[in-house]
Amino acid sequence: MGAGMTMAAAGTGGVKALAFDVFGTVVDWRSSIIRDGKSLGKAKGLSVDWAKFADRWRAGYGPAMNRVRKGELGWTKIDDLHRMILDDLLVEFGIKGLSEEEKVHLNEVWHRLDPWPDSVAGLTRLKKKFLIATLSNGNTSLLANMAKWGKLPWDVVLSGEMAKHYKPDREVYLMAADYLSCKPGELMMVAAHKGDLQAARKAGLKTAYVPRPLENGPGGKAEAPDAEFDVVAKDFVALAVGLGA
Amino acid sequence: MGAGMTMAAAGTGGVKALAFDVFGTVVDWRSSIIRDGKSLGKAKGLSVDWAKFADRWRAGYGPAMNRVRKGELGWTKIDDLHRMILDDLLVEFGIKGLSEEEKVHLNEVWHRLDPWPDSVAGLTRLKKKFLIATLSNGNTSLLANMAKWGKLPWDVVLSGEMAKHYKPDREVYLMAADYLSCKPGELMMVAAHKGDLQAARKAGLKTAYVPRPLENGPGGKAEAPDAEFDVVAKDFVALAVGLGA
Repeated sequence: MGAGMTMAAAGTGGVKALAFDVFGTVVDWRSSIIRDGKSLGKAKGLSVDWAKFADRWRAGYGPAMNRVRKGELGWTKIDDLHRMILDDLLVEFGIKGLSEEEKVHLNEVWHRLDPWPDSVAGLTRLKKKFLIATLSNGNTSLLANMAKWGKLPWDVVLSGEMAKHYKPDREVYLMAADYLSCKPGELMMVAAHKGDLQAARKAGLKTAYVPRPLENGPGGKAEAPDAEFDVVAKDFVALAVGLGA
Repeated sequence: MGAGMTMAAAGTGGVKALAFDVFGTVVDWRSSIIRDGKSLGKAKGLSVDWAKFADRWRAGYGPAMNRVRKGELGWTKIDDLHRMILDDLLVEFGIKGLSEEEKVHLNEVWHRLDPWPDSVAGLTRLKKKFLIATLSNGNTSLLANMAKWGKLPWDVVLSGEMAKHYKPDREVYLMAADYLSCKPGELMMVAAHKGDLQAARKAGLKTAYVPRPLENGPGGKAEAPDAEFDVVAKDFVALAVGLGA
């Protein structure tokens, strides 16, 4: 058992594959958006609170997915949901004078999110023992471009898009187990978000909680782990050590 | 333009992603099966013509997919089709005395197929310029395990399984374009088989023909390229050179 890791009584010996939440768990969306925003602001002479901008963009994502769940919108890739939210934010923040090309580039900041400092080292180690896959609401091409950007060594890129459902819908977790040829209990969901893990657990998956207290900015606090998660690890390297990878 | 490559008049400048057929195009299934068969035969004292065995196994694959297409079988992963064919072949070749574990291991030889000598070098180079994806009837976990075995650097593993169709059904090619966020004409199918490329072309994809004259054994001959393919390259390194990667 590695430092920074606790494991519940339930064994994790039968785990064959790991599925990772991405936004917030593997990559630091907030500071990456702030970085690109500041760079754009400098180039275009904009005065914008980019931290607030990033938070508002992220906050628009749940309601946008719900519009699809309720049938107001047909199936929509996250790239396109991000763009709809962005178009509203440009008005809200009074950002004018961006060309279509600049808007496309700004929207694709979600493809250029930086990994947390332990992500690549931990994934590289975990990959030696397990199949490692994304399991994100981000669309496939977004996740693939992000992997190139951050050198994330995925074996498989899985997206809610492939089930035409967003997490935490049960279909997404079962789709991942199916495509990885695992029984649900042979697949472990890794996430920094309790709701994601609780839904994975209900679908029969094993669960690993990796808190990311900085996801919502400096001074943030991670939620306390749920006692029913199989594993709690402080980062991906501790997770690899704990899982014997 | 690299040596060993010809390109049709149609431009390939708009290509963003490449989708690869796998069995025969990226990996040499025949000699890999012969290798594992010989090793098993030695261990178990079997006298089997493993080249013939490999050819019969491969030959069973088209008819098995057709059973699914015709509705005789529900959707079935290639791992399971391979096993059904294998069970028949064990009888046909008089192979007795294998444990269930040994049968499972033999069936998974399709996860342990070796790349052609140029495959890894060519893909590594192509990956710098393009998104590179499998587009195979092999199931996702088979393709992921094979990538680990052969160090194939895929950005994305796409399988007919994700469309619940086998190539050359049109749905598979369009699914790949959708998940890679490409228009069909921005995606290039790379294959050693003309039928695969002709179907890709009908679905609107660009096409690259890479003949693999040794796929069916020494002394084999590649089919003459179809004049309508966008690119013909002698191997993946020549393809990379030709596409400016």
